[in-house]
Amino acid sequence: MSETTTVRPQRASTIDQWDFEADVVIAGYGIAGVCAAIEAARAGAEVLVLERTGGWGGAASMSGGFIYLGGGTPLQKALGFEDSPENMEKFMVTALGPGVDKAKVHDYCQGSVEHFNWLVAQGVPFKEEFWGEPGWEPAHDEGLMYSGGENAAPFSGIATPAPRGHLPQMQNKRTGEKGGGYMLMKPLAETAEGLGVRAEYDIRIQSLVVDDSDDAGRVVGVVAKRYGKQVTVRARRGVVLATGSFAYNQEMIEAYVPRLLNRPAASIEQHDGIGILLGQSLGAQVAHMDAAEVAFFADPQMVARGVIVNARGQRFINEDTYCGRVGQATLNTQDNQAYLIIDEQALEAAHATESATKFFRLEPPKWTGETVAELESEMGLPEGALQATVEVYNRFAAEGTDPLLGRRAEWTKPLGAPLAGFDLREHTGGFTTGGLKTDLDSRVLHVSGEPIAGLFAAGRCTSGVCAGGYASGTSLGDGSFYGRRAGQAAAAIQD
Amino acid sequence: MSETTTVRPQRASTIDQWDFEADVVIAGYGIAGVCAAIEAARAGAEVLVLERTGGWGGAASMSGGFIYLGGGTPLQKALGFEDSPENMEKFMVTALGPGVDKAKVHDYCQGSVEHFNWLVAQGVPFKEEFWGEPGWEPAHDEGLMYSGGENAAPFSGIATPAPRGHLPQMQNKRTGEKGGGYMLMKPLAETAEGLGVRAEYDIRIQSLVVDDSDDAGRVVGVVAKRYGKQVTVRARRGVVLATGSFAYNQEMIEAYVPRLLNRPAASIEQHDGIGILLGQSLGAQVAHMDAAEVAFFADPQMVARGVIVNARGQRFINEDTYCGRVGQATLNTQDNQAYLIIDEQALEAAHATESATKFFRLEPPKWTGETVAELESEMGLPEGALQATVEVYNRFAAEGTDPLLGRRAEWTKPLGAPLAGFDLREHTGGFTTGGLKTDLDSRVLHVSGEPIAGLFAAGRCTSGVCAGGYASGTSLGDGSFYGRRAGQAAAAIQD
Repeated sequence: MSETTTVRPQRASTIDQWDFEADVVIAGYGIAGVCAAIEAARAGAEVLVLERTGGWGGAASMSGGFIYLGGGTPLQKALGFEDSPENMEKFMVTALGPGVDKAKVHDYCQGSVEHFNWLVAQGVPFKEEFWGEPGWEPAHDEGLMYSGGENAAPFSGIATPAPRGHLPQMQNKRTGEKGGGYMLMKPLAETAEGLGVRAEYDIRIQSLVVDDSDDAGRVVGVVAKRYGKQVTVRARRGVVLATGSFAYNQEMIEAYVPRLLNRPAASIEQHDGIGILLGQSLGAQVAHMDAAEVAFFADPQMVARGVIVNARGQRFINEDTYCGRVGQATLNTQDNQAYLIIDEQALEAAHATESATKFFRLEPPKWTGETVAELESEMGLPEGALQATVEVYNRFAAEGTDPLLGRRAEWTKPLGAPLAGFDLREHTGGFTTGGLKTDLDSRVLHVSGEPIAGLFAAGRCTSGVCAGGYASGTSLGDGSFYGRRAGQAAAAIQD
Repeated sequence: MSETTTVRPQRASTIDQWDFEADVVIAGYGIAGVCAAIEAARAGAEVLVLERTGGWGGAASMSGGFIYLGGGTPLQKALGFEDSPENMEKFMVTALGPGVDKAKVHDYCQGSVEHFNWLVAQGVPFKEEFWGEPGWEPAHDEGLMYSGGENAAPFSGIATPAPRGHLPQMQNKRTGEKGGGYMLMKPLAETAEGLGVRAEYDIRIQSLVVDDSDDAGRVVGVVAKRYGKQVTVRARRGVVLATGSFAYNQEMIEAYVPRLLNRPAASIEQHDGIGILLGQSLGAQVAHMDAAEVAFFADPQMVARGVIVNARGQRFINEDTYCGRVGQATLNTQDNQAYLIIDEQALEAAHATESATKFFRLEPPKWTGETVAELESEMGLPEGALQATVEVYNRFAAEGTDPLLGRRAEWTKPLGAPLAGFDLREHTGGFTTGGLKTDLDSRVLHVSGEPIAGLFAAGRCTSGVCAGGYASGTSLGDGSFYGRRAGQAAAAIQD
């Protein structure tokens, strides 16, 4: 507990002097932090960002850069896709639930087009090109892609499919030097700098400072550590927590998402849950602490052409959906056990495609068989189990249907021979999506339901638009969207 | 939020006068509260219990009365079952996980025999008789039963099976007048009364009172409501929260366990999460907020003789295990969709048995078929799906094996004809098992990891021995066990 023994709030009267001071103090210089900084500075506030590492970026700049946007963005329109805020909301409520914060999702969908335009105005580049193949990311620098299973069962029957994964145009895709996340963060950080936002690096926040004049506990600063020395920072108007998920806090993972223990992914070590703990130390409410984004370490081009089965040889998800859904289903409902069954022809077809994650193809099949029976026996599955699955699948696939799981005709072909079996057990990882409960102004809510005065939060230290489900881009999406709100609301406080 | 807008802690300096006063103040007169009261009184403390309803009992007195105990209790020994604390611990860590509080489970197993003897010493009656049939409860007043799947796959291969569901001897089982839970609570409440424990009824706690002399916030009392009027209660040594789960707090259920929305069961309306919220208002840590006990509304005698399939006609759990596991698997991994497939002979055999939940048999099968193909068609399942499942099951069942799910030979017989299909979709309900994080002395832990001075908790407002899993008797088990600890620890504080 050495990391967290200092999280108790401190009273302002115990602070002898302030080492730093600003109107709005932001902890964390990732996507939520930079957006909060820009908006607070634009509203006339003096802004100071405290960042634990040596530079801006956070998990955002290492990520693929997906931002989940829709409702008819200029990019969607230019590429011929129809969408509306209502249609987007219908999808999000179902796919990201159950239990989504309906007011937040509604608000997010209504503001989505404006948010896209705002990102463009800050200099974030989006290339007018659509990537329509299965994949975790586009194979090149395309700007738009399906990223949540919108065009697959069961959602395609609930809302009109529209791609909403908006991607900043990457540079040097091959080397990964300037990925989508970097190309999102760079213009934003430059904008913030241009607006006079100050940043102090190598500073790690430890506790919140509360004004003793107010019984309800108004947040007026933070205590932090820099090179082992305590640093005090006064926030005249408000503090914004933007410190990311708790994917790397072992104790919190054990207490909330034990399935994810020892499998953090798409996350950075700095994601230690400190923002959540600091909010809780003032009585903040949290939500959906068991929820997680789950990556499935396999090439979607192969997955969409094969059949995914569990430890009993049964299918459990339509293979043509967003691979994050395959990951969630595998980890949350199948004890992290999955196998990919694919025939030689389909495997060759997958290998012939472009893919951003071709490296997954380097892993050879663990088992092969001239027949399903042979493969089943090689895999050690009970006799008949896999055969029964393939028999039922093939019977309908011959007609391009999948009554069991609703796979689309274009991806539904009978499995032939010879066959390969890929071992995808324990092939998942992810980050947490639960956290502080916030309102539409990104105010951190107390368990009483009232906001905690002076405290704001955004990004993955909050529970955002996702409850149990996930779509790629929702984290950078609600992080940037509610990061802006946090900056606006904090700046608006009268100091 | 009208229910919770008052949960913010109040400072002692704002309290003009105390309406009640005691050394140890306990909120909630269910199993955890009564055990805390007894131990605190025995330790010499003046004890006051505040109960929201008109009498003692809580959810405990309405329950079946299971207490999960083992490690070689006199009852286990008398009935010829071998067990040890280590064996018990092996089972609990696996079955109640992943993510159990290992220190707590170890402590609980080590103290289990002593705890059984203590219950007996307080006058709780246990009949020396074992009930070995599948069931939610014994058919009569038997005192011991398997209540967590100890003797079924996969646990029978992990720890030596031993029944640990200890049941206070019921009276008038037929009318349900004096069930196991009542027969547990009655002697305990009488013991407490005999020790001079006072109780005030129709009092609903609203907020905690914190001493302003101590920066870290020492709990010195509670503010409550009685008939709409505010009541202040001073606690000289400590406050014990024993207010039950949050099964009836719609907002918390939506934020933490949306799957359980609108399906509370084995719970009472008073379980509104107030104890958890009050702890959180002082910065308490919580754990496993998504976890729940899940009842499966079906007769285990039928379930063990049939085959349970999901919406795709696939088996997903060994039907001979604890029915609460079938409920959890159905709700958590199968979207609450389950069907029971059983042949006429097995159905008649089940109907010929005794069962405490025979009333489930009143529900007729929704579908029937002379063949599996006919039943499958009647049920609207894709052609071949159920047939494939039954074919694989029957092939192995003919030899009494079940390589898919490890069902025991005695319960594994091929399905014959004619067949019946029972619609068990949405046939689940339950209560929450997540809550405040406490240590082995039932001290409520702050997010800093340190105890919150003067604050104790036990029972279902805490996260106890269960993480994701459940076994019948673990709630009354850890509620009584850590209720006692809370009473001892609170009484030991120097006022």
